Amino acid sequence: MTGEIICVGTELLLGNIVNTNAAYLAQECAKIGLNCLYQTVVGDNMERLSLSIKEALKRSDIILMSGGLGPTQDDLTKEAVAKVLGKELVLDENSKERIKAYFGEREITDNNWKQAYIPEGAKVLDNENGTAPGIIVSENGHHIVLLPGPPGELKPMFENQVKPFLCELDQAVIYSQMVKICGVSESLVETKIKDLIETQSNPTIAPYAKLGEVHLRVTAKAEDEKAAKKLVKPVVKELKARFGEDIYSTNEEQTLESEVVDLLKANDLSLSLVESCTGGMLSARLVGVPGISDCYKAGFVTYSNKSKKKAVAVKSATLEKYGAVSEKTAKEMAKGAALITKADAVVSITGIAGPGGGTQEKPVGTVFIGCYVCGTTVVKEFHFKGNRAKIRENATVYALIMLRKCILEYYSKETFGKN
Amino acid sequence: MTGEIICVGTELLLGNIVNTNAAYLAQECAKIGLNCLYQTVVGDNMERLSLSIKEALKRSDIILMSGGLGPTQDDLTKEAVAKVLGKELVLDENSKERIKAYFGEREITDNNWKQAYIPEGAKVLDNENGTAPGIIVSENGHHIVLLPGPPGELKPMFENQVKPFLCELDQAVIYSQMVKICGVSESLVETKIKDLIETQSNPTIAPYAKLGEVHLRVTAKAEDEKAAKKLVKPVVKELKARFGEDIYSTNEEQTLESEVVDLLKANDLSLSLVESCTGGMLSARLVGVPGISDCYKAGFVTYSNKSKKKAVAVKSATLEKYGAVSEKTAKEMAKGAALITKADAVVSITGIAGPGGGTQEKPVGTVFIGCYVCGTTVVKEFHFKGNRAKIRENATVYALIMLRKCILEYYSKETFGKN
Repeated sequence: MTGEIICVGTELLLGNIVNTNAAYLAQECAKIGLNCLYQTVVGDNMERLSLSIKEALKRSDIILMSGGLGPTQDDLTKEAVAKVLGKELVLDENSKERIKAYFGEREITDNNWKQAYIPEGAKVLDNENGTAPGIIVSENGHHIVLLPGPPGELKPMFENQVKPFLCELDQAVIYSQMVKICGVSESLVETKIKDLIETQSNPTIAPYAKLGEVHLRVTAKAEDEKAAKKLVKPVVKELKARFGEDIYSTNEEQTLESEVVDLLKANDLSLSLVESCTGGMLSARLVGVPGISDCYKAGFVTYSNKSKKKAVAVKSATLEKYGAVSEKTAKEMAKGAALITKADAVVSITGIAGPGGGTQEKPVGTVFIGCYVCGTTVVKEFHFKGNRAKIRENATVYALIMLRKCILEYYSKETFGKN
Repeated sequence: MTGEIICVGTELLLGNIVNTNAAYLAQECAKIGLNCLYQTVVGDNMERLSLSIKEALKRSDIILMSGGLGPTQDDLTKEAVAKVLGKELVLDENSKERIKAYFGEREITDNNWKQAYIPEGAKVLDNENGTAPGIIVSENGHHIVLLPGPPGELKPMFENQVKPFLCELDQAVIYSQMVKICGVSESLVETKIKDLIETQSNPTIAPYAKLGEVHLRVTAKAEDEKAAKKLVKPVVKELKARFGEDIYSTNEEQTLESEVVDLLKANDLSLSLVESCTGGMLSARLVGVPGISDCYKAGFVTYSNKSKKKAVAVKSATLEKYGAVSEKTAKEMAKGAALITKADAVVSITGIAGPGGGTQEKPVGTVFIGCYVCGTTVVKEFHFKGNRAKIRENATVYALIMLRKCILEYYSKETFGKN
């Protein structure tokens, strides 16, 4: 069974709103194993709407539509579906009563009754959060599901009424697991798993790259969840063998920063941060993790030389001799903050984010990241590409990756020493 | 001339990411008068990609495509376009050199060279922020524009290279001016200009809301730029009369943070920041403005009570009696940082971002923002809605708005006093 999604609305076509409905519907469909192969956005225009519906009927069993069910003349989705299928719109008494009840004592303008008309023979989905009912029209094995546009109405209606309907239609189950890798480039990940991708069709491995990370989604389809899980398991095991410690999580919800916070907490390490070019980005990202208060001691944004000296005791001589963007300064920033705040772990970042400030020796994109863990300080030099924002984002994510690695290394050495 | 947008990627079809590229491209096209009547999302699949491209060629002059230009075998957009148009892919030496330069000393895996191949006769768009070049393929009056999927690469490429190309194709001149308002809700802005929006068709006024801000784009279409400007001018004047000081800029490029930095510099004010729940977000946003080094003294992330005391001298008694999230603490944070760093202006933020930590008296979303300008400290209490991220973003933007207002007020009083 295949599905597709059609979202209707001029505000989508003009880019005034972002199409979160499509993402929501796609994600929910994927969960229940309904493969949605197309998403379309079209305006409130009878001709183009009808064409899109006809096109979708040719290639998909299930068509999920959102938007255009409202009371205004603009709203044409229901009318277009009825026209394409050659059906009349008839008054649904139940929907009429619900609209009346929804308004209560408030005045109901005439155009609201338009919402109580549905294509003949269609299934009506009561709207618990608005006036426009949802509709399922079935014809020759195709099912067109019409949902109201506002996410606050669409989501509960999908969850409570459409999902059960779709699950009943299809017997198969989809199960997927995420494998999250950090610090390995997309192309290197791809090279390392080329053979798996090429030979596998169930489960599939889908890579998704974001800055500094590659997420691999392993997805299997089977007759029940147990069988699907059984297909996924050996592939995840193989990925773990190939990427080892570069895999930071196999949990869908875990982010790189929440992983780092978990790692700090698990080892009872406190953290301080000293940032120059990133200006607080690293700190802000880590503070996005609830519960970081357990380990976060203090953060400093030492954008000026003066504040580097004053806040974290970088030596004037170091700044003069090596410059603010140097291995030596990064090291002193990290060590200074560790000393002053008594933190077990510190990350320091100093770099040239541009557009100005670059030299031949230290071009824009040069960033030094220092990492102090329980007495040992490591500094690495990076050369990031892109504009100011990109360079700063890169510095932030590589600082997280470095902190994670330094903690892991520290404890692997410690364990080794103990043995 | 009509356009349409095709976004390519399995992660879109699975709903793993929201299609912000489509919204961005749609909005940018609307600005330059290119009517985009369809948006499609399709996966990395040769057959379905080819079908979508063929369909689009039937109905649109310009096809904007994003995604699927990367180095992996999944990436098929370019290949599908070449196939539909019957063109060969040929090596572009310039792109090859750029990829080489991008990697520098790092190892380049073979699949990266795939990105240097482009359909014969196509125009290459250099990618300043990644390795995959953009491409424009023109054939029989149709133009297919291929853009990389990551928004950080797509946006600058569209802005700097695609927009000028599209403007050249269309002879009518579009001129638009931006009016940027802060601290006024979207619905209030709309109420205030409802009459203008309803009666105007050239120029049009398009509101675009972002957190804490509403941007109004006034756009006129005319035979030449002079005529278009003449249409825009009186409308911008009227908006200025209606919104006064709440308009922070009429410059497209200016952001709220760059406006604040300009204001600091113009008045020769130095700045320090003390953040608790925002954890460095405000600092990171301000450091996004190049040249902030001229006025930024120091930033502190005082997430713990200890660091509030140690870094910016908040009194233990204050924390005990009023709590870390209180008017009094916000005030001491601002004044303490001013004293310690000798800054002319300081912003302090302390609040409950959730999900935990709320009480009946101080529910999640309670944020105190303190603003010190040249000896005077003002504290305001806010109650923001939403999740942890949303509350922190709100606190950040309202801190900027408050700093701007405090500086403006300080100088308006000073001027008044002098007269």
